Amino acid sequence: MSELKFQISISLDGFAAGPNQSEEHPLGEGGEQLHEWVVKLAAWREPHGKEGGEVNASTEIFEEALDNVGATVMGRNMFGGGPGPGGEEPWRGWWGDDPPFHTPVFVLTHHEREPLEMQGGTTFHFVTDGIESALAQAKEAAEGKDVSLGGGASVAQQYLAAGLVDEMWLNVAPVLLGDGARLFEGVGAGVKLEQLRAIEGPDATHLKYRVLS
Amino acid sequence: MSELKFQISISLDGFAAGPNQSEEHPLGEGGEQLHEWVVKLAAWREPHGKEGGEVNASTEIFEEALDNVGATVMGRNMFGGGPGPGGEEPWRGWWGDDPPFHTPVFVLTHHEREPLEMQGGTTFHFVTDGIESALAQAKEAAEGKDVSLGGGASVAQQYLAAGLVDEMWLNVAPVLLGDGARLFEGVGAGVKLEQLRAIEGPDATHLKYRVLS
Repeated sequence: MSELKFQISISLDGFAAGPNQSEEHPLGEGGEQLHEWVVKLAAWREPHGKEGGEVNASTEIFEEALDNVGATVMGRNMFGGGPGPGGEEPWRGWWGDDPPFHTPVFVLTHHEREPLEMQGGTTFHFVTDGIESALAQAKEAAEGKDVSLGGGASVAQQYLAAGLVDEMWLNVAPVLLGDGARLFEGVGAGVKLEQLRAIEGPDATHLKYRVLS
Repeated sequence: MSELKFQISISLDGFAAGPNQSEEHPLGEGGEQLHEWVVKLAAWREPHGKEGGEVNASTEIFEEALDNVGATVMGRNMFGGGPGPGGEEPWRGWWGDDPPFHTPVFVLTHHEREPLEMQGGTTFHFVTDGIESALAQAKEAAEGKDVSLGGGASVAQQYLAAGLVDEMWLNVAPVLLGDGARLFEGVGAGVKLEQLRAIEGPDATHLKYRVLS
């Protein structure tokens, strides 16, 4: 059965992004520290067009995220709410001509537009009628494979609070941000978890849970 | 050199105690779930006068807490702000005649009183002039061994925020409390951590950090 799974990097004090998110700081101030563990990995660098990188205990986490994924859901900012780092025009997102998803991607937005077909199997579909609709469309498109929740933090929060997440990997970076977007803000005490795995990477600890209710 | 170390159990959403702490719920509502991993352990049960229990991957965490400890600091509630579970008179704390510390214990309180000598090497000293004084007295008493911070959550928070903690084990229970006492509340972005270890226990994941600044 198609499940909704996601991975997200958080600080030890629970923030998925730092304070004062802006075009200059899409991850908020200090937020880039949450992702240091992943940008070092050869497994991340290769699909992002970068050379080199490490293979370490965190590699399997990153690879598992791509495993058995038939569709992706993400927020508008994740698609490319601001200008991309390479100077691409904003309306094609900031993922370049050949985005690393290679699946249909359902982008939550308030603005209707036609689907945008990219190279390599990625097509962006724009969904204006909410998270449940986006998930239903993604599950349909996934044809029995899983749906990956791409982020950002507020989208992950919304799916968690709605009880729609099945599994999650939390990549806990050894940093305190003190302020910003809390992953579990508004996700109440009603959510029960099953601890599935824990892996110590060199630059983050990876905790995997199944959301039971 | 004498260091300040502590262990604390927190929920995945960062709470060291649930909401509405009271005499009936000293750990707040739902807070007892944070400690399920430890009360199962034979290593915990034996010094608390209980039979049976498990030996599992979490055992070494609990045992390490007692290792090389020459003195203990704790808050007044931890000493026994309310009636003890065994019906002991409150003024002798709720740890029984032979408390499991076997060291000098410095209790943060607003009420001066004489030291209270118990069986087994535990003497409670009552400190009214703040956390730095309590730590200085504990380090003196520890004679080169480490000082263990016994809790509760608000005391751990105060020592963290003051930058006085050297090492900590966070025992992360697979539960969301949604509300309560956040361990890292008010502990700002200035605190840098070094990730030392991660251990997957059956009922909690244990994360060890050194506080660098």
